[in-house]
Amino acid sequence: MSDEFQQRSAELIAAGQTLYARGMLPATSGNLSARLGDGGFAITASGTHKGQLTAEQILHLDAAGQPLTAAARPSAETALHLQIYRRFPAAGAVLHPHSVNATLLSRLQAEAGYTPLLLSDYELLKAFPDRDSHEHSLTVPVFPNIQDIAVLAQQVDDHMHQYPTPWGYLIAGHGFYTWGATVDEALRHVEAFEFLFTCEMRLRGLKA
Amino acid sequence: MSDEFQQRSAELIAAGQTLYARGMLPATSGNLSARLGDGGFAITASGTHKGQLTAEQILHLDAAGQPLTAAARPSAETALHLQIYRRFPAAGAVLHPHSVNATLLSRLQAEAGYTPLLLSDYELLKAFPDRDSHEHSLTVPVFPNIQDIAVLAQQVDDHMHQYPTPWGYLIAGHGFYTWGATVDEALRHVEAFEFLFTCEMRLRGLKA
Amino acid sequence: MSDEFQQRSAELIAAGQTLYARGMLPATSGNLSARLGDGGFAITASGTHKGQLTAEQILHLDAAGQPLTAAARPSAETALHLQIYRRFPAAGAVLHPHSVNATLLSRLQAEAGYTPLLLSDYELLKAFPDRDSHEHSLTVPVFPNIQDIAVLAQQVDDHMHQYPTPWGYLIAGHGFYTWGATVDEALRHVEAFEFLFTCEMRLRGLKA
Amino acid sequence: MSDEFQQRSAELIAAGQTLYARGMLPATSGNLSARLGDGGFAITASGTHKGQLTAEQILHLDAAGQPLTAAARPSAETALHLQIYRRFPAAGAVLHPHSVNATLLSRLQAEAGYTPLLLSDYELLKAFPDRDSHEHSLTVPVFPNIQDIAVLAQQVDDHMHQYPTPWGYLIAGHGFYTWGATVDEALRHVEAFEFLFTCEMRLRGLKA
Repeated sequence: MSDEFQQRSAELIAAGQTLYARGMLPATSGNLSARLGDGGFAITASGTHKGQLTAEQILHLDAAGQPLTAAARPSAETALHLQIYRRFPAAGAVLHPHSVNATLLSRLQAEAGYTPLLLSDYELLKAFPDRDSHEHSLTVPVFPNIQDIAVLAQQVDDHMHQYPTPWGYLIAGHGFYTWGATVDEALRHVEAFEFLFTCEMRLRGLKA
Repeated sequence: MSDEFQQRSAELIAAGQTLYARGMLPATSGNLSARLGDGGFAITASGTHKGQLTAEQILHLDAAGQPLTAAARPSAETALHLQIYRRFPAAGAVLHPHSVNATLLSRLQAEAGYTPLLLSDYELLKAFPDRDSHEHSLTVPVFPNIQDIAVLAQQVDDHMHQYPTPWGYLIAGHGFYTWGATVDEALRHVEAFEFLFTCEMRLRGLKA
Repeated sequence: MSDEFQQRSAELIAAGQTLYARGMLPATSGNLSARLGDGGFAITASGTHKGQLTAEQILHLDAAGQPLTAAARPSAETALHLQIYRRFPAAGAVLHPHSVNATLLSRLQAEAGYTPLLLSDYELLKAFPDRDSHEHSLTVPVFPNIQDIAVLAQQVDDHMHQYPTPWGYLIAGHGFYTWGATVDEALRHVEAFEFLFTCEMRLRGLKA
Repeated sequence: MSDEFQQRSAELIAAGQTLYARGMLPATSGNLSARLGDGGFAITASGTHKGQLTAEQILHLDAAGQPLTAAARPSAETALHLQIYRRFPAAGAVLHPHSVNATLLSRLQAEAGYTPLLLSDYELLKAFPDRDSHEHSLTVPVFPNIQDIAVLAQQVDDHMHQYPTPWGYLIAGHGFYTWGATVDEALRHVEAFEFLFTCEMRLRGLKA
C-alpha cells in the first residue's frame, strides 16, 4: 500500500466524519474518492457507513476503475466518480454527500422538468475558484436518478460536453456531486453548495 | 449478569447518547431494547433520561417480558418491543426515538384519518436492506396514541398480520419505532427514517 | 461559602453551558437559580454570559432576595425567581432560557391578545410529573414584557393565584420560565418545553 | 511580533473556530479583525478558511491599513474594517460572519428597495450596551453588494454620517458586519444579531 494511498485514505475518512456530523451522510449513503498519482483512485466501499469509515473500507482502484484487491466491492456509483476525473484533469477529489437540502431541491427541480438550478446574487459564489465576483452566477444541472449508473454517467458526460458544469451537479432525490483539486478544496465546495442549497430551499419556504 | 447482556447494555447506552445528542430523546422520552441469546431482552427502565443512561437503568427481561430482578420498572412500552421481536425473528434491536419531525408527521397523518405515510422517490430508501432501488417505496403506518399499551400492541400486530410493515411505524404525537438485526443496524434505520421524515415535513412547509 | 451553595453553583454553571450550546442563552440573555437549605438562593449575576459562567458569577441571596456580598449585582429578574419559589414550595430550581421558538411563540400569542398557549395531543406532556397521559393538556400563560420586574412578578403571581400554572410561562419576545424540584428536573422541563414550542412553531409554518 | 498582536491573533483564531462551528463562516467566507494599541490592526488573510486559521494567516497592518510584511494578502474587505475603526473610536474588534439568515434577510430587504431592517419588541436588544430596555428598537441598514470595496466603504461611511448605526449592518446576499470594544463583546453582538435575524426570517416563513 503506497504512502500516497494511505494519505488520501486518511483524508477521505476524515471528510466522511466531518460530513456525517453535519447530517450529510445519513445511514450508508454517499461516497467519496480521490485521484492517485499512479493514475488510479481511492474510493469508499459499497454499503459502508461513511461517518465511521475504517482504512479497509477505502479501496484502491486502477486507472480503469478495477479494484486492485477483491477485499470489498467499490461504491456502486464508481462510474460517476470516474466520469468526473476523466472530464476534469485538475480534479483530485470527488465528494458525493446526501443532504436534506440537496435531496429536496433536486426533487423540486426534477418536478419542474429537470430545470437546472441557477444560483446568483450570492457573495458565496466566490468560494469557487473561477468566480471572482458575486455578479457571476452558477448553473447546476439536475439529472434523473437512473439506477443504471453507466447510463447515468453517460448522460452526465453528454451534458458536460455541451454545457460548462464547473463545480457540481444534482441527482433527483439523491444528493449532489462536487469536486476539487484536493479533498480539502472539494470539502470547501461542499460547504459552499450546502450553504447555497440551504438558502434556495429557505427562500422557497417563505410565504408568497 | 452475562457478558452478552453487558455488551448489549453498552450498545443501548451509547445509542441513547447518540440519539439524545441529535434531539431525538428529549427529557425522559423514548425507549431502547435488544434481544439476547437466552430468549430474553435488555430494555431501558421507565422514567429514565435516555441520554444519560447508567448500566443499572438497563433491565434484563426473560422471554415472557418479566424483569429478572425487581430493581426498577421496565419501560411502560415494553409490550410494543416484544410484539416486534415476536413478529420479526431477525430483529435483534428495537429503537423508539421521539423526534420533532416524527411527532409532527404522525399528528398530521392522524388528522388526515390515520393515512399511512408513503415514502417514494428517495435514493435513501436503499438504506433499508430489502430496498435495492429508489424506485421502491416504503409505506409507514400511523397508529393512534392509545395509552393502554396492550391494546396498542395488539392493534399494531393485527396491522402487521395484514400488511407488510418492513421497517417501522409511527404513533400519533409520539414518535416512531424501528428495528434491525443489531443495535447498529437499527441506528442506521433511525438515521434513514429521520432523514426521510425531515424531507417530508420540509416539503409540507413550502408555499403552495 | 457552604458546600451546598458550591454544589448548586456547579449545577447552574453546567446547566448554563448545556443550554448555551443549544442556542437557548445567546449573548448575555437568560438567568438561572436554585433554592438553598438555608432559605436563601443561588442566582446568576446580571449581565454575564450564561454559557461561560464562573463561580464568582453565581451570587448567594438570603431568603428576602438580598445578596450576602456586594461582589456583583444579581439578575435583574430576581423577583421573578423569588415569586416562583414562594408560590411553589417544592420548586428547587428555576431556569429562564431564551430560545428562538419561545421568543417567537410568545410574540405571536401576544399579538393574538396574550392568549395562553394550549399544548395537547403530545406524548411528551408526560415528561411533566403530574401528566400521566398524553390525553392531558398543558396551558402556558403569556405575559407582556413589562420592564418593571416588580410589576411583572405581581402580575404573574396574581395569575397563578387564579389559574393553575404547573410548569412554566412565557414572556412576550423574551423567552420562558420553568422550574423543578432540582436543577436536573428543571433542565428536563426545559427540554420538554423547547420540544413542544418547536413543534408548535413548525405547525404554524406549514402551508394552510 | 508584539505580545498584544499575538494575543489578539489568538482571540481571532478562536472566534473563527466558534463562528465556523455554527455555520457562519462557510468555505473561505467572512473576515475578522482587532485594533492594536500601536494604532494598527490584526486581520485575517484573504482566501483562507476562517474555521481553521493559523497564526500565519493573521496579518499585522499599520494604522493606514498597509501590511507590515508581505507574507500574504490581507482580506479584500480590509477597507470596510478600517471604516468602522475610524468612525467608532471605541471599536476594538470587527467581525464579519456569513450566515444563511443574514444572507437571506439582506437579499429580501434589498429586493424591497434596500429598506433598513427594523428590529423591535425583542428582549434580546438589551444585549447591545446602549439598549437598556426592550422598548428600544434597532435599525440595521442594508447596503448593495458593491465589489469595489473602496466605493462600498465610502457609501457605508456616508450613511453613518447621516444616521446612527450603532452596532451593525447588512450587505445584500453577503452577511453582516458587527463590532465591539473587544473580540469577546463583538462575538456577543454576533450572537445577538444572529438570534434576531433568525427570528425575523422565521416570522417571514409563517403562513399569512
